[in-house]
Amino acid sequence: MRQTIKCGLIIIGNEILSGRTQDINLSYISKNLTTIGLEICEVRIIPDIEDMIIEAINTLRLKYFYVFTTGGIGNTHDDITTACVAKAFNKRLIENAEVMAIVKNLYKDAINEACKRQALMPEEAKLISNPVSDIPSFYINNVYVLAGMPIVMRGMLQSLLPKLQHGSPIFTYSITCNLSENEIANELELIQQKYNDVEIGSYPFYQSWDNRGADFVLKSHDKQMLEKARQEVIKMIENKSHSV
Amino acid sequence: MRQTIKCGLIIIGNEILSGRTQDINLSYISKNLTTIGLEICEVRIIPDIEDMIIEAINTLRLKYFYVFTTGGIGNTHDDITTACVAKAFNKRLIENAEVMAIVKNLYKDAINEACKRQALMPEEAKLISNPVSDIPSFYINNVYVLAGMPIVMRGMLQSLLPKLQHGSPIFTYSITCNLSENEIANELELIQQKYNDVEIGSYPFYQSWDNRGADFVLKSHDKQMLEKARQEVIKMIENKSHSV
Repeated sequence: MRQTIKCGLIIIGNEILSGRTQDINLSYISKNLTTIGLEICEVRIIPDIEDMIIEAINTLRLKYFYVFTTGGIGNTHDDITTACVAKAFNKRLIENAEVMAIVKNLYKDAINEACKRQALMPEEAKLISNPVSDIPSFYINNVYVLAGMPIVMRGMLQSLLPKLQHGSPIFTYSITCNLSENEIANELELIQQKYNDVEIGSYPFYQSWDNRGADFVLKSHDKQMLEKARQEVIKMIENKSHSV
Repeated sequence: MRQTIKCGLIIIGNEILSGRTQDINLSYISKNLTTIGLEICEVRIIPDIEDMIIEAINTLRLKYFYVFTTGGIGNTHDDITTACVAKAFNKRLIENAEVMAIVKNLYKDAINEACKRQALMPEEAKLISNPVSDIPSFYINNVYVLAGMPIVMRGMLQSLLPKLQHGSPIFTYSITCNLSENEIANELELIQQKYNDVEIGSYPFYQSWDNRGADFVLKSHDKQMLEKARQEVIKMIENKSHSV
């Protein structure tokens, strides 16, 4: 049985919601998870508010095989993700000895209380290594807590990918044409109905009335079915283009 | 009583979740809503799946004063937002005469069933005009349905802004420094505790160990309090920079 492993993502941060910071983590995480057969099925973007973080974690961790979070794991007053994960799992926040050793080695004489807070983690948490800025993050059960800063998040995710359970691979094919969706909507729907195991998405683009078109994205676990559906979409586009 | 009007946003589309398409609508919508005192408090990014769309609409429309959706209002098989909004409100989908007149005028002899589908809306829906590609979208109660294509969504939002209820304005101040969060975390927290009506966010950046720092973002409805908190943050940065 071919199957995708379903995941949820929680993006935590007022700066994303306010539009100050453009999130670029979702696309990176999703593309990388796809390579190992994991799929992001839902994303919630929420502010640095305790109740909302706990609710999102507790809702999504029951719905999905893996849940990833980004953001809120620094050491200023507005970084509350770690404490919220502990509360969501009813665990105490404790000092992780392995992380404290890294923190001490990193800051040496400049160490202060704020530095040390980075070693606090929910009891029973396991570490996610951080090849970029050294201080590990953690996971507990199926909830994986990643940094918000893209450069750090990427390092953490790369260190994590080989350790996650893999789903069966998803194959994808994209095709662009200058036909409008109106011209192909009915035929494309018929192709979709014929190939249940292929997901066909149609994404129009519009620069002006004369420069518009659509991208079709076909996805499937079944390479053979994908190829058949692809041939039909290409044939449809050719027929339509001739008839225009 | 100064207050922000709280909003939810639902971004609908497999292409956003898969990372194929980078969402740029959230930041545009949020920044524009902020100018009239509206705040995005939560975003859900969900696939083109009926149950999930209906659930998100029915959850968020009870939680927030306004809910906006983007995506899924074209006329291919994977565009199901309009039908889902109708189901969420228990309304029939009916042909809107005003929109049908626009559709007929736009497509003339090239009109087909797919074109006509764009005139289907939930009964009692009211129109949102579309200055970019002409065919209106709609709102029903507090749910505003916008296009996913940024150029079209922006036109719709601009036509909508003057018609929405306005909250009291939010003032913002940003400051960047090359101090690490460790150096300022304690003092910044004290300033935050002193100014309840000012929201202080700290957003670290990290290029390398030697090129790192933080942006502080201060927000408030109260311009005077904001200015006082700002002065304290600047003083803190100056003191810390001298002592390094």
